[in-house]
Amino acid sequence: MNVLVIHGPNLNLLGTREPATYGSLSLEELNARILREAELLGLQVSCVQYNSEGAIVDALHSARGTFEAIVINPGAFTHYAYAVRDAIAAIGIPTVEVHLTNTSAREPFRETSVVAAVCRGSISGFGADSYRLALRALANVRQV
Amino acid sequence: MNVLVIHGPNLNLLGTREPATYGSLSLEELNARILREAELLGLQVSCVQYNSEGAIVDALHSARGTFEAIVINPGAFTHYAYAVRDAIAAIGIPTVEVHLTNTSAREPFRETSVVAAVCRGSISGFGADSYRLALRALANVRQV
Amino acid sequence: MNVLVIHGPNLNLLGTREPATYGSLSLEELNARILREAELLGLQVSCVQYNSEGAIVDALHSARGTFEAIVINPGAFTHYAYAVRDAIAAIGIPTVEVHLTNTSAREPFRETSVVAAVCRGSISGFGADSYRLALRALANVRQV
Amino acid sequence: MNVLVIHGPNLNLLGTREPATYGSLSLEELNARILREAELLGLQVSCVQYNSEGAIVDALHSARGTFEAIVINPGAFTHYAYAVRDAIAAIGIPTVEVHLTNTSAREPFRETSVVAAVCRGSISGFGADSYRLALRALANVRQV
Amino acid sequence: MNVLVIHGPNLNLLGTREPATYGSLSLEELNARILREAELLGLQVSCVQYNSEGAIVDALHSARGTFEAIVINPGAFTHYAYAVRDAIAAIGIPTVEVHLTNTSAREPFRETSVVAAVCRGSISGFGADSYRLALRALANVRQV
Amino acid sequence: MNVLVIHGPNLNLLGTREPATYGSLSLEELNARILREAELLGLQVSCVQYNSEGAIVDALHSARGTFEAIVINPGAFTHYAYAVRDAIAAIGIPTVEVHLTNTSAREPFRETSVVAAVCRGSISGFGADSYRLALRALANVRQV
Amino acid sequence: MNVLVIHGPNLNLLGTREPATYGSLSLEELNARILREAELLGLQVSCVQYNSEGAIVDALHSARGTFEAIVINPGAFTHYAYAVRDAIAAIGIPTVEVHLTNTSAREPFRETSVVAAVCRGSISGFGADSYRLALRALANVRQV
Amino acid sequence: MNVLVIHGPNLNLLGTREPATYGSLSLEELNARILREAELLGLQVSCVQYNSEGAIVDALHSARGTFEAIVINPGAFTHYAYAVRDAIAAIGIPTVEVHLTNTSAREPFRETSVVAAVCRGSISGFGADSYRLALRALANVRQV
Amino acid sequence: MNVLVIHGPNLNLLGTREPATYGSLSLEELNARILREAELLGLQVSCVQYNSEGAIVDALHSARGTFEAIVINPGAFTHYAYAVRDAIAAIGIPTVEVHLTNTSAREPFRETSVVAAVCRGSISGFGADSYRLALRALANVRQV
Amino acid sequence: MNVLVIHGPNLNLLGTREPATYGSLSLEELNARILREAELLGLQVSCVQYNSEGAIVDALHSARGTFEAIVINPGAFTHYAYAVRDAIAAIGIPTVEVHLTNTSAREPFRETSVVAAVCRGSISGFGADSYRLALRALANVRQV
Amino acid sequence: MNVLVIHGPNLNLLGTREPATYGSLSLEELNARILREAELLGLQVSCVQYNSEGAIVDALHSARGTFEAIVINPGAFTHYAYAVRDAIAAIGIPTVEVHLTNTSAREPFRETSVVAAVCRGSISGFGADSYRLALRALANVRQV
Amino acid sequence: MNVLVIHGPNLNLLGTREPATYGSLSLEELNARILREAELLGLQVSCVQYNSEGAIVDALHSARGTFEAIVINPGAFTHYAYAVRDAIAAIGIPTVEVHLTNTSAREPFRETSVVAAVCRGSISGFGADSYRLALRALANVRQV
Repeated sequence: MNVLVIHGPNLNLLGTREPATYGSLSLEELNARILREAELLGLQVSCVQYNSEGAIVDALHSARGTFEAIVINPGAFTHYAYAVRDAIAAIGIPTVEVHLTNTSAREPFRETSVVAAVCRGSISGFGADSYRLALRALANVRQV
Repeated sequence: MNVLVIHGPNLNLLGTREPATYGSLSLEELNARILREAELLGLQVSCVQYNSEGAIVDALHSARGTFEAIVINPGAFTHYAYAVRDAIAAIGIPTVEVHLTNTSAREPFRETSVVAAVCRGSISGFGADSYRLALRALANVRQV
Repeated sequence: MNVLVIHGPNLNLLGTREPATYGSLSLEELNARILREAELLGLQVSCVQYNSEGAIVDALHSARGTFEAIVINPGAFTHYAYAVRDAIAAIGIPTVEVHLTNTSAREPFRETSVVAAVCRGSISGFGADSYRLALRALANVRQV
Repeated sequence: MNVLVIHGPNLNLLGTREPATYGSLSLEELNARILREAELLGLQVSCVQYNSEGAIVDALHSARGTFEAIVINPGAFTHYAYAVRDAIAAIGIPTVEVHLTNTSAREPFRETSVVAAVCRGSISGFGADSYRLALRALANVRQV
Repeated sequence: MNVLVIHGPNLNLLGTREPATYGSLSLEELNARILREAELLGLQVSCVQYNSEGAIVDALHSARGTFEAIVINPGAFTHYAYAVRDAIAAIGIPTVEVHLTNTSAREPFRETSVVAAVCRGSISGFGADSYRLALRALANVRQV
Repeated sequence: MNVLVIHGPNLNLLGTREPATYGSLSLEELNARILREAELLGLQVSCVQYNSEGAIVDALHSARGTFEAIVINPGAFTHYAYAVRDAIAAIGIPTVEVHLTNTSAREPFRETSVVAAVCRGSISGFGADSYRLALRALANVRQV
Repeated sequence: MNVLVIHGPNLNLLGTREPATYGSLSLEELNARILREAELLGLQVSCVQYNSEGAIVDALHSARGTFEAIVINPGAFTHYAYAVRDAIAAIGIPTVEVHLTNTSAREPFRETSVVAAVCRGSISGFGADSYRLALRALANVRQV
Repeated sequence: MNVLVIHGPNLNLLGTREPATYGSLSLEELNARILREAELLGLQVSCVQYNSEGAIVDALHSARGTFEAIVINPGAFTHYAYAVRDAIAAIGIPTVEVHLTNTSAREPFRETSVVAAVCRGSISGFGADSYRLALRALANVRQV
Repeated sequence: MNVLVIHGPNLNLLGTREPATYGSLSLEELNARILREAELLGLQVSCVQYNSEGAIVDALHSARGTFEAIVINPGAFTHYAYAVRDAIAAIGIPTVEVHLTNTSAREPFRETSVVAAVCRGSISGFGADSYRLALRALANVRQV
Repeated sequence: MNVLVIHGPNLNLLGTREPATYGSLSLEELNARILREAELLGLQVSCVQYNSEGAIVDALHSARGTFEAIVINPGAFTHYAYAVRDAIAAIGIPTVEVHLTNTSAREPFRETSVVAAVCRGSISGFGADSYRLALRALANVRQV
Repeated sequence: MNVLVIHGPNLNLLGTREPATYGSLSLEELNARILREAELLGLQVSCVQYNSEGAIVDALHSARGTFEAIVINPGAFTHYAYAVRDAIAAIGIPTVEVHLTNTSAREPFRETSVVAAVCRGSISGFGADSYRLALRALANVRQV
Repeated sequence: MNVLVIHGPNLNLLGTREPATYGSLSLEELNARILREAELLGLQVSCVQYNSEGAIVDALHSARGTFEAIVINPGAFTHYAYAVRDAIAAIGIPTVEVHLTNTSAREPFRETSVVAAVCRGSISGFGADSYRLALRALANVRQV
């Protein structure tokens, strides 16, 4: 199974960005952990990061034909980027929404996800493990 | 009359994207229909498609001096992209908002258009014909 | 194709009513334009105007068996007349909602349409042309 | 006991109107059932149907002196017709609100009844039986 | 000055309708008081009452050319009848909104008037005197 | 037909609890009336009362296999107990919601029912007769 | 009858303050008109103006024993000064709320009056005549 | 690591309850899967199910001293049971919220979780795997 | 005077539960303080604690005939448990609502009390003293 | 301990103001009761009353250096006077909010307190005893 | 250019009031800084501070004829004092709103300014410098 | 001090875009003014303009290590671009929000800023001077 992992805006700053909230792991280290987990699960994973909504929409479109599943951390786009939502719905590839932090325990605007309704499921609050669990969720789906 | 037709995010997937909702016409076929209608009406039409809000803002800016009217299907941007709204207001070119589907008959978030107030008028629900009618609306305006 | 055009409340005052907003065309002149367009499109059109919600509901009911399509400008009823909405849904005849003005650019209460969700599509902001475009929308539907 | 049964807007289309929602019984057949039930209960019943809010207000006013109880299905007027509400309050005749369908299980706008507060009680969801139960409710009141 | 006084829905029941709220004066007696006041002020007054929104819209339209001012008690229509609002705005005749009761001291839905914004002014809470004061307001305007 | 009647919280106090609102009938007397009506209709009825949401959920679960229909007065749980709603939806037994009082004529919080949408229908405002009518509603369903 | 007229905040600037909105009459001229009208009606009137909420509350309290009626234009306090509302309710003297302008036709925040519910009635939109009509309203009450 | 798995109201009906929504796995089979996963991860797991909010609060309290982590599917309690929220906060044991379904893709009332803010993280939409992933999330935490 | 003190959900954890918020006093110590205060005031007090809403409703019912007053800290039930509200209203025993903390200074959801309206009064923010003051409030009432 | 008791707007009318709501005790008698209670508790108390928000803010400022605690009944200011809230927060003296009536059982606007969040605690519904209990609350704090 | 600087409620406590939020500068020191900046800019500045809304309204009125510009920190009045708003609009003197703190980063109620719409501009978050920048803004305006 | 000035979407049209609202200064002229002011203050300033949210996020990220302060006019992004907000928070560089116009005096949607809470302060309404004042604000900070 070929999986595309999409990191949304500001996640390139991981490790240096508000470590009290997001942890001290860099995006490179996070991707390394994701790849190790993928290897364990027998999955092929590609990781990309974009700060632009249009680039994420493009990446989702390009995934068709190449990837069988998507893991997306939409970052701040979670709360208003209906174009990302429409792209996920449009491509018809099983998608899992992940968040490093427990968004329900932060500012009120972070409680709303406009993409959740078109995803297969959602995992939040486990730091880097949110991604690893998403891969397992997808691997499990395959096994069943 | 020189008209710019702007297709918003995800419309490049037309035909393959949720055909039950958006129909089976591809973007190429849609553009062909638009051009045929333009020819009939004696209009020059250029069609572009962008998945990025910034690109649409840029396209609207560049339209000044070249195009006398604009037809825009803002897709999901309809519901939150105030930068597109400001661009339409800024360039002062008559603009018609179109939608393939009847957005009022879908999810509640699709009932709000942040661009409608700065457009000349709005046409929704007629599939490819929404665009053709928009061209006619502009052609009629010219004749008066 | 036999089309019924229904003008809602206060449209009988057209031409004399707030011309800055609604234009100087009288209802008679508007109907003449509609009929000319119908002739061009090979449609049979009857135009009626009512100030009463009940009369509009009755007209919609009577359309069954006689008319194959409806064009309705519900005027102020657009914003609260659920009985008109239910009538449109009940008769099952393709219906197009039209407005002379761009209702999104006026008072906030005009942004909500309780009938849009049960119509085929919606056209607003083009003055008399809103009706002409609605006829074309219906004619196109027939041709497909 | 003399009972007036008022059917609101669009109920004249019963049987032909969205049968999946409203059933296949015509208004005539519904009235026949109501009359049979009335006979069983020893009640005199008159059935009327109006598509106009004003006509329903008039009918409620005329009921004074002739009818001792009212059964009303306000149809779409349920959700906004405060004039009907005021008429029910004004005439002081015990009134029962009925609905063929379970309005709470449909569109959100159907959850609000502006007339319920001035009625004796409310029965919804039992098709034609909603009316029959309303008659019984009134008959029971009399017996007590 | 020729003044049209329009009584809205349910006001025909005045005197018999919830006298604790609306007083024991009948509509005939109210009209008599209005006429006496008009005579005092040198105004010609015609009084009409309608339970139907469409009839009020018609009456407002017909007022053009005959009446120089309007006094309207829209009753329950106050709170939702945008068609009446549009009619008042359309005819351009100075209009005064009156209410027998202090609507702000009753149910919450009575706090909103959709017609107030297009009237010259508003008078509520003085029973029959609300109308008499409205006539004076119009007479004063004339004198200035 | 075997019917389970579930009385929700505080209904055990019937007769002694705010008689101006709920009447002077005790729960025992209410149950007796229900049973008499059931006998008349040829139904078997069991009546239970619980003050705990969990107990009502349990009772609904246990109804499967034993009862063919349910009459429930959820009392205050009507307004927030989504677990009761889910239980009614889960067991798939036709359920009728009843209320002694006209809940729409009381405090605003009583206007919302979170269980109505998953019930067959709803009857409120007729005191003990609300239950008797519910039994009839179920008996009628059977006869059809 | 002894009447206290209270002008609220900023009304001392009348005539110089936004004349397009409030007219060119000064407060002195307004008071002169009020006194002339009072003389005509056989009323004793005292006029005061305060920019402070506490001063208005004090004036309302002091009115007890001296004044039989109050006319108040609460100005901006209309929209939030619950202390003024409580004072009006506390003193039990019939009070009429007046406004120079039609507050419903201005900014949205001016649509809410927190004092209206405890006043006898309300008059707005007639400029200086709003006060004169209020005196008449009080004089009429006395005559009845 | 000793983990308590708490199933909330109606989950005892799993497999028989709306299988289109919740799947055909019974609670026993779900627990078996959870235990197998726990064994794999070297965790001790106890599974309990309660239909009563109070029982869940009690279970959470009793967990102190015995369990080092909690996995909870609060079912319908998710949306209003602040007592469960307070219990999770009070006991200070790391807790993971799980849902079988993607609650964001269902009724609007299921979008709000009153317990999410006091949990470590949240996993929803993966059926039985939601629980298995929660165990892994907890196992990972331990390893770090 | 015989007084029942009811502690709501999670209060059994007092002293161990978030001491920064709720203080370090255990429930036993709190009850001891309450009893000492009662002795001083010549009151008989019984203290109970429940985590289940149904149990609190039952306790309130059983209070009739035995207790002349009730002090209740509804804990999290304060914000949604309408069944507790109805029980307090139903039994007609003077009831005082108490809270250890100043609920207005915490999460927004804690600002709403659904039971306050049916209580005699409310005391919050004084820790254990909230209860002692409630007893005094009741003792004072008796003395007057 | 030196305590300042601040009575807000309209409380000078106590005894004569709506006695059904506020009781028949005058402010002088209330102050006498407060002083007796203070004597009993060994507290020094000064009582002041102001109808102006600014005067209350001034009094709160002046309390610094002289008073160790404050009891305030903000009257109608409770619901909007953020300047009073800021003053309480600014001076850092423990403050108790009191109300004679149970504000939750009155008009909806009285349910909101903008000062509660910056007070130590709140006592409402016990008439004059609300103040006496507040003094005790402060005395208890001192003893601990 | 003659500038009036108005400090609103509680600003007299500056330096002693919540220094973590408002800084340790006293009002005297703040005024000294403002005067120094004014000297630099060649402006005449008078500084006043009021805790009463009426006093601020009076000060704004008196500014006419004496001052050519106003700098106002309305403190808590920012959020509800429509009388201050009306005074600023009434006097027609260019006014700049300033805040010491970034009000958007504090409690939600501080996000709304009812005076901003009638000011020339707004500066917040720079402590004492907010005032100095406001003076510069006014000086710049003059130079242009 | 090295300062980055970021102009948001549509600001490249300055001077030609709705000059009645935004003034006739071009972006080049605005930048020239900003640079002159910077020179005066001894600051190094770079000015950039982007129509794309992603480009602004990128620019903010790149500012780290190069710029010590940021001045940003987010244009329409002000009202919804949470990704920009997160970027400002992530980079930890003092940022000042500026607006040419007084956004509070325009459309309601312009009253909300989603970035204000993470900025140091905010300046709006002074045209080009808004930027110059922001530079001064930053220069002052440095001096202290």
